[in-house]
Amino acid sequence: MNVLDHGFVNLVESWGSDERIIEAARQSVGGGFVSWAPYEGHPKGDAGLLRYMWEHEHATPFEFAGAVFEVRAPIFVFREWHRHRVQAFSEASARYAPLPDLNYVPTVERMLQKGGASRQAGSTGATLTQRQAEFACEGIANTYKDIQYEYEGLLENGVPKELARLVLPVGRYSQMRASANLRNWLAFLKLRQAPNAQHEIRVYANAVHDMLAEKFPRTVALFDEGAP
Amino acid sequence: MNVLDHGFVNLVESWGSDERIIEAARQSVGGGFVSWAPYEGHPKGDAGLLRYMWEHEHATPFEFAGAVFEVRAPIFVFREWHRHRVQAFSEASARYAPLPDLNYVPTVERMLQKGGASRQAGSTGATLTQRQAEFACEGIANTYKDIQYEYEGLLENGVPKELARLVLPVGRYSQMRASANLRNWLAFLKLRQAPNAQHEIRVYANAVHDMLAEKFPRTVALFDEGAP
Amino acid sequence: MNVLDHGFVNLVESWGSDERIIEAARQSVGGGFVSWAPYEGHPKGDAGLLRYMWEHEHATPFEFAGAVFEVRAPIFVFREWHRHRVQAFSEASARYAPLPDLNYVPTVERMLQKGGASRQAGSTGATLTQRQAEFACEGIANTYKDIQYEYEGLLENGVPKELARLVLPVGRYSQMRASANLRNWLAFLKLRQAPNAQHEIRVYANAVHDMLAEKFPRTVALFDEGAP
Amino acid sequence: MNVLDHGFVNLVESWGSDERIIEAARQSVGGGFVSWAPYEGHPKGDAGLLRYMWEHEHATPFEFAGAVFEVRAPIFVFREWHRHRVQAFSEASARYAPLPDLNYVPTVERMLQKGGASRQAGSTGATLTQRQAEFACEGIANTYKDIQYEYEGLLENGVPKELARLVLPVGRYSQMRASANLRNWLAFLKLRQAPNAQHEIRVYANAVHDMLAEKFPRTVALFDEGAP
Repeated sequence: MNVLDHGFVNLVESWGSDERIIEAARQSVGGGFVSWAPYEGHPKGDAGLLRYMWEHEHATPFEFAGAVFEVRAPIFVFREWHRHRVQAFSEASARYAPLPDLNYVPTVERMLQKGGASRQAGSTGATLTQRQAEFACEGIANTYKDIQYEYEGLLENGVPKELARLVLPVGRYSQMRASANLRNWLAFLKLRQAPNAQHEIRVYANAVHDMLAEKFPRTVALFDEGAP
Repeated sequence: MNVLDHGFVNLVESWGSDERIIEAARQSVGGGFVSWAPYEGHPKGDAGLLRYMWEHEHATPFEFAGAVFEVRAPIFVFREWHRHRVQAFSEASARYAPLPDLNYVPTVERMLQKGGASRQAGSTGATLTQRQAEFACEGIANTYKDIQYEYEGLLENGVPKELARLVLPVGRYSQMRASANLRNWLAFLKLRQAPNAQHEIRVYANAVHDMLAEKFPRTVALFDEGAP
Repeated sequence: MNVLDHGFVNLVESWGSDERIIEAARQSVGGGFVSWAPYEGHPKGDAGLLRYMWEHEHATPFEFAGAVFEVRAPIFVFREWHRHRVQAFSEASARYAPLPDLNYVPTVERMLQKGGASRQAGSTGATLTQRQAEFACEGIANTYKDIQYEYEGLLENGVPKELARLVLPVGRYSQMRASANLRNWLAFLKLRQAPNAQHEIRVYANAVHDMLAEKFPRTVALFDEGAP
Repeated sequence: MNVLDHGFVNLVESWGSDERIIEAARQSVGGGFVSWAPYEGHPKGDAGLLRYMWEHEHATPFEFAGAVFEVRAPIFVFREWHRHRVQAFSEASARYAPLPDLNYVPTVERMLQKGGASRQAGSTGATLTQRQAEFACEGIANTYKDIQYEYEGLLENGVPKELARLVLPVGRYSQMRASANLRNWLAFLKLRQAPNAQHEIRVYANAVHDMLAEKFPRTVALFDEGAP
């Protein structure tokens, strides 16, 4: 699934299922999954149990499912992503291989976006005109070019890769795999799909959300209903 | 897989593979899995990379695989098991459903076992005779019976389950699911298959080991060679 | 601070403070703690920031404080406590030293308690009379005595400590130290002070709460106001 | 403690002590700290127990001490640091406040350094001359200047801070507080003081090491002896 100008999120694999989550929960009373539909003594079926667990924050059963994603995103997005310490990460390292010349340039529409960003993260007070926004996007793109020119020069002159990378901008794309259980992915979505999250990580969170929804439709539907 | 007199360990599911571990590791240089056999520039194939990572404790890639087990074991075994805080657990609760009358009675051979236990955990100095060992096993079994009699009586008289359970012995079987990534399962095995681990958790660790070896044969083979 | 019939919770040490939490939070904008009272540009002072963080679940700053407790509690209480996997635990082991003959016997009032326990954890339907409750408490105490008699017999006959302990009841007291940061302690309190938590762990959580309130009065006051 | 050209590491506070670690360990047998010097039944004193725990990787007691540091370091150093997921971090955010114009420029000696870096992270094969190294350092410094010029221009034109930051290089200094228990700090040192760690994070790890050694002299002395 493509994200931003050069990024993507791909599902590598998932484990568990909505049914497995019920199975894990039923360990506490010695049972398993029966049926999503109503059955003897459970007028709402196991769908009722799933909802009960979600609404009462019985979070452990949601640790019995999970997913691995492969992600290409700008470094500043990864910097926020890596705050989620219950995930496992394996990322490209510019110590070992030069990072390809892929950099995130915001669109003019994004540059003019209002309200997506929190007040603090917003502009310095001025309101951008269309022309100013175009100019800013070009300025960023040109700076990336100058940086890449310097980066390549340093590498060609024999500067160690681990030092040549110092000039790389946080708008440069990197790549990683990230693995987490479903409980943690949902905590990630809660923070990173929130209105005050930065647009650029929000679009990645949206992609993660949609792929999780295919694998765990009932759990993600409960998540979509809102808190907790 | 049966363990002890009434216990078991069953694999519920696993994710990842030896190949996926290589894929995760190759994120750092932007590649994937190629071949376990030798290939251009890699005289030992990706088997060489797997060994290198293992021997140099590059542990993160081993977090990109994992397994879920269903386990029935005595409470004192679970008490040690639950010290592994990177695992997810969902266990039966005697607050909600009475625990079935299944209790661990050591065999006479186990009772006479030497050296398996560390010195500190060992006997008070005396050496058990065959007759004494038989007597001890019977004593334990009889105590379980008396406890069960009391437990049932309390429940029948209307004592809340959460209080009736106070008398249950730590030799009583409970049941749970446990989920962890492969890095953590191997850390579990390292501690719990060690000679100074108590025999009863060691046999569970052995069962976990054998089921992991079927799913991740190359990684577990490296583990079996020894440290780290 | 004494808890139940033979238990206690003592504060070993704490680190950080309400002020340190503000300092950690201000890292994001490059400042420090100023004043709890109003000041230039902050009409609610740093008290306003603390409240904002709490209400918006900005949890990380609360990881920059913490506390270590020494606790003596029944094993079934520790079994619930140890589900909090972000804490560090160091507990007495009956493999290495026999556990002293201290066991939890509920009071008759506790035995008759209504509503504290969740419905599922409650009685089997019958309603206990005063006499039945007394009888149940005596029955539990007598079972403990029988178990202790067997336990001592096994030890005296030279049965390894790690096997003699099999008969010990989950009502037996054990002892541990537990360390966690403040964010985690508050998550512990949220679950374990809840009305549906079992009475016996609730009284321990209450003791932890009161000692934290002395060290972190402003943060605990926010916690006491309610969610999140 | 100053590190690199504009960085530092300062100890904010620590908790626990070598003695507290012994106390935590003695929970398992029901005792406390006695004496570092020999005493009845302990010919090596509690120094012997500390060594035993260290050498046998009984790691839990080392979780009962810890430290908080305030750190200013280049972003690429923080990127490696943040892989240590058991630490708590609170970092400056360029979404909320522009990052000051402080950037890491390697010295010529560092640029010419051999062997510190692993082979893979090293040069592209060429060997730098003194003149080339000087030229590279100047090139990096000049690129920083151009980037800062662009960054300020974007901010002045009203581009949101969260987008203006895209051009910032990973050589830019940021600031954070980091909190962890001693077990985790020693794991950090083991990886980041290793010969194949990048020089720039190694000097930070050295500073952390020296400050820990003042607070926990006996534990750090064992660490310094080597594995594990």
